[in-house]
Amino acid sequence: MIVPNLHYAELQDSYFFLRISEKSEAYLAAHPGEKLYKMGIGDISQPLCPAVIDALHQAVADQATMEHFHGYLLESGLHELRETIAKHYASRGVTLSPDEIFISSGAGDDLGELLDLFAPESRALVLEPAYPAYVDTNIMSGREIIHLPASCDCDFLPEPDEQIDADLIYICSPNNPTGAVFTREKLKTWVDFANRRGAVILFDAAYEAFVTDPALPHSIFEIEGAPTCAIEICSLSKTAGFTGTRLGYTALSKELVRHGMSLNAMWLRNRTTRTNGVSYILQKGAMAAFSPEGRRQIESQLALYRENASVLSAALDQTGLWYCGGKNSPYLWMQCPDGMKSWAFFEYLLHEIQVVGTPGIGFGDCGEGYFRFSSFGNPKDTREAAARLVSLLKR
Amino acid sequence: MIVPNLHYAELQDSYFFLRISEKSEAYLAAHPGEKLYKMGIGDISQPLCPAVIDALHQAVADQATMEHFHGYLLESGLHELRETIAKHYASRGVTLSPDEIFISSGAGDDLGELLDLFAPESRALVLEPAYPAYVDTNIMSGREIIHLPASCDCDFLPEPDEQIDADLIYICSPNNPTGAVFTREKLKTWVDFANRRGAVILFDAAYEAFVTDPALPHSIFEIEGAPTCAIEICSLSKTAGFTGTRLGYTALSKELVRHGMSLNAMWLRNRTTRTNGVSYILQKGAMAAFSPEGRRQIESQLALYRENASVLSAALDQTGLWYCGGKNSPYLWMQCPDGMKSWAFFEYLLHEIQVVGTPGIGFGDCGEGYFRFSSFGNPKDTREAAARLVSLLKR
Repeated sequence: MIVPNLHYAELQDSYFFLRISEKSEAYLAAHPGEKLYKMGIGDISQPLCPAVIDALHQAVADQATMEHFHGYLLESGLHELRETIAKHYASRGVTLSPDEIFISSGAGDDLGELLDLFAPESRALVLEPAYPAYVDTNIMSGREIIHLPASCDCDFLPEPDEQIDADLIYICSPNNPTGAVFTREKLKTWVDFANRRGAVILFDAAYEAFVTDPALPHSIFEIEGAPTCAIEICSLSKTAGFTGTRLGYTALSKELVRHGMSLNAMWLRNRTTRTNGVSYILQKGAMAAFSPEGRRQIESQLALYRENASVLSAALDQTGLWYCGGKNSPYLWMQCPDGMKSWAFFEYLLHEIQVVGTPGIGFGDCGEGYFRFSSFGNPKDTREAAARLVSLLKR
Repeated sequence: MIVPNLHYAELQDSYFFLRISEKSEAYLAAHPGEKLYKMGIGDISQPLCPAVIDALHQAVADQATMEHFHGYLLESGLHELRETIAKHYASRGVTLSPDEIFISSGAGDDLGELLDLFAPESRALVLEPAYPAYVDTNIMSGREIIHLPASCDCDFLPEPDEQIDADLIYICSPNNPTGAVFTREKLKTWVDFANRRGAVILFDAAYEAFVTDPALPHSIFEIEGAPTCAIEICSLSKTAGFTGTRLGYTALSKELVRHGMSLNAMWLRNRTTRTNGVSYILQKGAMAAFSPEGRRQIESQLALYRENASVLSAALDQTGLWYCGGKNSPYLWMQCPDGMKSWAFFEYLLHEIQVVGTPGIGFGDCGEGYFRFSSFGNPKDTREAAARLVSLLKR
């Protein structure tokens, strides 16, 4: 009899987000007519911008005619889109060629699939609190996982430690869930650590568009030495509202070589074997997101989310409680008051002020006692939630 | 230093299709003004049908407004699309519930990703000639591969043999490249074999829409016993012209259990962890492909490809050479005349009659001496190519 991948039996049930919605629904059922202020969701609330919509319509129209129809495409993406993204990197001083950029169905897809490039014996280091899929994808592939818990003592920006015996290193900056952003100097310590060890960094840049401070890096490739140790996983989900439209990209330099094998060549081989690429329609939509017009329109959506983040920051400032994030990031990460645990604080906010957030424990053990707010909601609800937080928590 | 997945070094270079296009281009460069008749391509030539185009435009319009915008979706697909596909199966007498159907970015993507459900020690049986990715994805995951070569003696429909010690069994019917289609009886022998052994069949149904003979199965789930041993991988690429638009689906029954683990539950866990699902826009387009109007329009496109296949069949009938396929299938698979090898025959057709096909050797060693034609080209070129084949090969 065939043996299933038994590592799946080691996975914990992923009921965390389900539990949030069940508790919210139970509250509404018990309190008919009340309204909840949802400050927990990681999904965006603004529709696609007009430039992207126009490009999507045009691409759909192309698929209707013999002359403009596109069948199978290059598995790693349309050359024009990869060139556009290379230029986008160049505008930040990063040199990558189009064949170092791979278009994907989204960051979530590539974060899992990229693991195929590494031997299952490689050990994965997860800087926690973290996006749960980093851990789960590695459990599925039978990898040993080293958990590196962070705390408010380091502002949730942990530093490498020569004792850590890791081969694959997950870094997410701006971070989900903490909103903390690595400075160039702090990121350099990880790049140097990875290069010294021959480790590989999987750099999750899904929230880079929220960085406004010019002193902070958008891309790990802004750091010297990154091309020889880092793979950057990017997404248009939070940048351009593509959470339900789907498209991302991964940057992998030809300088990244391990045991004489080019990881760029391996990834190209993976793509040509394991996918037929991303929809022509979506790639044309993504092109428009990088156009000057698209970028202007997207900036005004980002400004709205940034304003939400400031409103929530100002509220937390008034409470006097410790928090990080909210600047250069869509997330805020607060310490629960009076040593409350994450789920207790969740219930407290739900019942007292009808504000729904995300318990920190959902992102790893060291998230216990913390709580995440997101700035992706609508501005009116965000202002009301902020006012309610102040009135409940201000000392 | 991190160890890459060393199995990638065992892969052969995938220059096969590149070599075809290089030889074609070299011919044109040496013979300016001549035209080639491309009967080799696996890509379709007709644009998307109007019903699908309308639905895609509508879905793009939804993404432009606050009221109709869709962000993150269920990873395994929109419920309405999965229900539609379940009804499509029901129309063929197959009972599957919507949660036994998973929407994918395409059959090529799922064929690779599904391997994650099985221990790397499982042995894969590939019925050859075969789509090269069956072999390559298993090399990448370090699996032992058992090659089962077929020949014209069994009309390229091999039967199971109790000596075969396999855990995973690839079956593609209608077959790429041979065009051979398993009858219900022949497919039943494989289903029974898999159930006896506790093996799992990966059934590639990408070409099922070409089946017109009611005696032949579209789906392995038409065969008694299949739900406890088979996973069916489907695609809209050849059914509805989605090669460049991208969408497929995989059917996996809750009855498929190995070592007490439900493969349906494992696949759901894989999807919720390793993807954020398929674009809302593409899923709405796919919905329309299953509507009565969409199906009528698609049928008229399929009729065009079927007519191409008849034209090529009639030509091969006149040559007296052995071939299979061309009925209930978009592919024709012929024996090269006079014991010619595949690449020699390729050169012969290219230089003598400017017809380009696909050398059989590209699909495994037992494809040597055979040649594939496809019916996806345009009707005029197909008629001209057929006439040239007759004049060159008729005895």
